[in-house]
Amino acid sequence: MTTLTVELGERSYPIYIGSDLLGQADLLKKHIPGNSALIVTNETVAPLYLEKTQSMLSGLKNEAVILPDGEKYKNLEVLNQIYDSLLRNRFDRNTTVIALGGGVVGDMAGFAAASYQRGVHLIQIPTTLLSQVDSSVGGKTGVNHALGKNMIGAFYQPKAVIADTDTLDTLPDRELSAGIAEIIKYGLICNAEFFGWLENNMPSLLTRDKDALLHAIEVSCQTKADVVAADERESGKRALLNLGHTFGHAIENAMGYGEWLHGEAVGAGMCMAASMSNQMGWMSDEDTQKTINLIEQAKLPCNAPKSMTTEKFLDLMSVDKKVLDGVLRLVLMKGIGQSIVTDDYTLDDLNQAINLSLAA
Amino acid sequence: MTTLTVELGERSYPIYIGSDLLGQADLLKKHIPGNSALIVTNETVAPLYLEKTQSMLSGLKNEAVILPDGEKYKNLEVLNQIYDSLLRNRFDRNTTVIALGGGVVGDMAGFAAASYQRGVHLIQIPTTLLSQVDSSVGGKTGVNHALGKNMIGAFYQPKAVIADTDTLDTLPDRELSAGIAEIIKYGLICNAEFFGWLENNMPSLLTRDKDALLHAIEVSCQTKADVVAADERESGKRALLNLGHTFGHAIENAMGYGEWLHGEAVGAGMCMAASMSNQMGWMSDEDTQKTINLIEQAKLPCNAPKSMTTEKFLDLMSVDKKVLDGVLRLVLMKGIGQSIVTDDYTLDDLNQAINLSLAA
Repeated sequence: MTTLTVELGERSYPIYIGSDLLGQADLLKKHIPGNSALIVTNETVAPLYLEKTQSMLSGLKNEAVILPDGEKYKNLEVLNQIYDSLLRNRFDRNTTVIALGGGVVGDMAGFAAASYQRGVHLIQIPTTLLSQVDSSVGGKTGVNHALGKNMIGAFYQPKAVIADTDTLDTLPDRELSAGIAEIIKYGLICNAEFFGWLENNMPSLLTRDKDALLHAIEVSCQTKADVVAADERESGKRALLNLGHTFGHAIENAMGYGEWLHGEAVGAGMCMAASMSNQMGWMSDEDTQKTINLIEQAKLPCNAPKSMTTEKFLDLMSVDKKVLDGVLRLVLMKGIGQSIVTDDYTLDDLNQAINLSLAA
Repeated sequence: MTTLTVELGERSYPIYIGSDLLGQADLLKKHIPGNSALIVTNETVAPLYLEKTQSMLSGLKNEAVILPDGEKYKNLEVLNQIYDSLLRNRFDRNTTVIALGGGVVGDMAGFAAASYQRGVHLIQIPTTLLSQVDSSVGGKTGVNHALGKNMIGAFYQPKAVIADTDTLDTLPDRELSAGIAEIIKYGLICNAEFFGWLENNMPSLLTRDKDALLHAIEVSCQTKADVVAADERESGKRALLNLGHTFGHAIENAMGYGEWLHGEAVGAGMCMAASMSNQMGWMSDEDTQKTINLIEQAKLPCNAPKSMTTEKFLDLMSVDKKVLDGVLRLVLMKGIGQSIVTDDYTLDDLNQAINLSLAA
């Protein structure tokens, strides 16, 4: 087992990564301050890991709430099911919400923990690759609104993240690829060496080689932990983690939440950011091609869906959280491992990048 | 104009108290960091003060959302109207939400600000006595759930509180009394001298004598600011501010939100806490009678509604946020100005206090 730490002063917390962590009750229990816990999971994960998780909670009052599975259920209405369960079971301010599942479960359970009685304890047990390398770490929680993704939420840090890599055995291939999209992102943002490692080890990741996955998860979590420690509330550097996300959110929203997986939309979004950076003369043809190749190698889509239009993109991107005082900041690249947050581009540059992707 | 400060390190903020503050645009504008603002108000306050507030925002992009008036609308569904307005108008992460109204508007606008895009700026412009002396200060925000009051929310501090005492001119008498309930609370909690002042000046407060109101608001805000600075997230001392509230919330919930004003329920709740403290031998007959007299003098109800039962009280009180790991902590009194948070009472004591109030 590897233990990393997200350094946030008195709110610092560990990320445990390894095999059979769901078999170690003490690991979970030592992070539960009170005598009760609510497990939030979904109908896909529950049959696989709920019983195992519940058995770790022996001696504590505990209940489970099982949500429908999918990004399209990440809304206020379904969130209310978690509040209902907390209240109906009389869980108090010292209770712990345990998020058992992927990114959607983690985001919703996290926001429920942040807002129930103005904040109760939270533990993340991510069971997908995407949530293990990205969404379970760093405290972003929330739900979608019909008019924009993740528009309602809170920064709320967990007491611990427990990433049991055995849970990846049951992950569908499509979701494996979606998780790899976020792993590639860390290379593109700030770690050219890791990008190189990914180029060499993509086949091992796709065949779920344990050692390769463990290494990729560790590097990803360490990168995320470092960025979050430096800028918890995204006033600066943390925005880099949104590489591909502004384009990606527009795709997810336009297609209907859940139609494209988040990681798939981010994959296409990173290709669009790479093309735009290239066409602006910021990134070399070689680095751009390498980026596109790696994303394709990971079995991710590299182009925007044909059913979208440039107008739709621009419309949806302008409500993205990266907009400050009317200026749309984007994450673009000066090269592999050298991403920047910038508004130093023209509307023409953006139009061209979208048109190119739609035409491809 | 008096300026007090809530001392919370880099999140410290001023409370401005005085006449004609809505005529001073600079006071508001200097606390708006971006170039846009959304005013959240209700259908009662809008005709009175919306135009005046909007005229303070000249040069900034601004919109208003007008909610229905009343505690019964303080729920997730109506909260969504604020999100809708923020998104439809494309307000970004640097926008400011301005709460213009009483406690319900402040709580809802505050939670919307805390959760929109994971947190935008917030300014409180309280227009009722209750919100000026209590709810606008200290960062408690949230909405009710069918199963409990204020069960969903966040601790989220404003950038400034602007309490224009002229707005009290239009306040209905019943709401004036409700505000006085919270003022009396500060005396009972920790300030016997102020309690004595209130005994002498209650007639002046009820006739809205400007100087008397100003003094009462200043002492109340200073007390609240001190308590919040010492214990922002209610892990200890801040719970004292809930004197009368555990009983009061049960009344509000049982009667249907809005039937009794919050301050009225707190008035009756403080009488119940006083009686219980007296019957346990903690508070003298004299102090208990003084407490009841002052609450009655303020034209507040002093007994629980006849339609309630002891069972209903106990049922509703056990979901109160003051419950920790199954033990219901109450705020009781050792004397005027000497309240404590305690679980050192028997179920019999509690039963007796409720029965006594229901029989009165």
